Amino acid sequence: MPHTHRVKILVLSDAASRGEREDRTGPGLRQLLEGEGWHVVACEILPDEAAEICRRLEAWTDAGECDVIFTAGGTGVGPRDVTPEATRAVCEKEVPGLAEVMRSEGLKKTRLAALSRGTVGVRKGKLIVNLPGSVRGARESVMAILDLLPHAVDLVQGRTEHPGSAFDS
Amino acid sequence: MPHTHRVKILVLSDAASRGEREDRTGPGLRQLLEGEGWHVVACEILPDEAAEICRRLEAWTDAGECDVIFTAGGTGVGPRDVTPEATRAVCEKEVPGLAEVMRSEGLKKTRLAALSRGTVGVRKGKLIVNLPGSVRGARESVMAILDLLPHAVDLVQGRTEHPGSAFDS
Amino acid sequence: MPHTHRVKILVLSDAASRGEREDRTGPGLRQLLEGEGWHVVACEILPDEAAEICRRLEAWTDAGECDVIFTAGGTGVGPRDVTPEATRAVCEKEVPGLAEVMRSEGLKKTRLAALSRGTVGVRKGKLIVNLPGSVRGARESVMAILDLLPHAVDLVQGRTEHPGSAFDS
Repeated sequence: MPHTHRVKILVLSDAASRGEREDRTGPGLRQLLEGEGWHVVACEILPDEAAEICRRLEAWTDAGECDVIFTAGGTGVGPRDVTPEATRAVCEKEVPGLAEVMRSEGLKKTRLAALSRGTVGVRKGKLIVNLPGSVRGARESVMAILDLLPHAVDLVQGRTEHPGSAFDS
Repeated sequence: MPHTHRVKILVLSDAASRGEREDRTGPGLRQLLEGEGWHVVACEILPDEAAEICRRLEAWTDAGECDVIFTAGGTGVGPRDVTPEATRAVCEKEVPGLAEVMRSEGLKKTRLAALSRGTVGVRKGKLIVNLPGSVRGARESVMAILDLLPHAVDLVQGRTEHPGSAFDS
Repeated sequence: MPHTHRVKILVLSDAASRGEREDRTGPGLRQLLEGEGWHVVACEILPDEAAEICRRLEAWTDAGECDVIFTAGGTGVGPRDVTPEATRAVCEKEVPGLAEVMRSEGLKKTRLAALSRGTVGVRKGKLIVNLPGSVRGARESVMAILDLLPHAVDLVQGRTEHPGSAFDS
C-alpha cells in the first residue's frame, strides 16, 4: 500500500498577501497536485519577507502534517525575491540536482528560466521545493520533477528498503 | 526610451596587474560590449587578492555609476583563483542559472569549461558576472547570457512593470 | 614525463563500516582507476558521520600522499547522507561544474541521478570528488569527468605553464 504524500503550498507574494491581486498560482498548483494523486493539506499566502517565510517553513517542518512543501514565488532576482535565501537558511541539506532539472526543463520553454533561483532542500524529513510564482512557471517546474518526488520523500524519511532503487547507496 | 546599461569591467590577473603581461581581455570585452550597445564606464585591473577584489566590488556597487560589473579571470581551480569566493562574499543573492548557462554553453566548445567556477550575484541593485580570464572564454561566456541581461537588470533594479515578461512573479 | 596521479578512496557506509555488508564500491573504483593508470594508495571505509569524514579528509589533505580523493556514498537525500556537507566544510573552494557534469551524465542513464548531491572541492592542493555509493553510480560518475582530472590536478597544484590549456587565465 503506497504512502499517501501530503503537501503544503506556500505562496509568496506581497500583492496577493495584501489582497491587491488574486492568487491563481496556489489554486493552480493544488488542482495539478490533486490530479496527480497528492493530498494538499494547506495552501497559504505570505508576503516576501524572509523572516516570516523562515518561521512558516520551520513551523510546517517541525510539525508532522506534510511530506513536501512547495513554495511559489520570490525566486527571481528582484529586491523583494528572498525565497531561496529563506529556504536555505532553514534547511539541513540542499538537493541541487532537482533545482538544476527544473531550470534546464524551464530553459526549453523560455530563456527567462535562467533567472529563476529556486532551490530544493530538506528539513526534518520534509522536502522543500521552491517554484516560480507564475501559474505557468510553477506548473512547468513541478511537472519537471514530480515523478522523482515519491522516491525522494521515501529516502528523505529513511525508507530505503526497496531494492533496485539505489543510485547512491 | 530604453534604459542605457552601464558596465564596469574588472580584470583579475597577477601578471597583468604588475604589468608583466598585457591584458587583452579587458579591451576585448569593452569592444564586444560597446558593439552590443552597452556603455562601458570603467575597465580596471587588480591582482588575484580576495580582499582587494571585495573592496573594489563593494565600492563599485555602493556607487550608482553602473548596472553590471563583469569580472574576468580568477575563476579557475588554481591556488590564486579567488574571484567567485570574493564575489559571493559581497553579494546579497546568487543567480546560479546564469552561471549554469555560461558553463553549459562553454562545454559545447571545450570540456575545460567544467573547471570554470564563475558565479553571478546581485549587490545593491547591480549584477556582478564572473567571466573566465581568457579573451575567448570571456567572450563566449558573455555572449551566452547577454540577451538576458537587460531584462535581468530591470528586475534587479525593481522595474517589473512590463507585461509578459514574468516567469517568476 | 607525466606526473603520476595518486588517489585515495574513502567509502562512506554505515553498514560496510560495521562489516554488515561487503563493500564492493571501493574495490570497483580501485580496479577502474588502476586500469586508467592512476595510482591508488589507500582505500578505507568510514560510517556516515560528518565529524569523522571531516577529520579524515583533513588528515588526507594535510599530508602530501595523494592528489585526488574520491569519496563514495553518503551523497543522497537520506538522514544519514552527509558527505557533501562534510566535504564543503573542509574545502577552500568548490568546483560546481564538475558536479554538474557528473549529474548531467548520470541523468542520461537514470532520473535518480538528480537526487545525487555530490560536490567537488579543493583543499591544500588536493581535489576531493564525491561519488555516489553504488558500484554503478560511482563508476559512471568518475568516468564522466576522468579525462578532466589530470589537467585539473595540475591547475590545483599551481602547474599552469602548459600552453593552449588555459580557458580561464
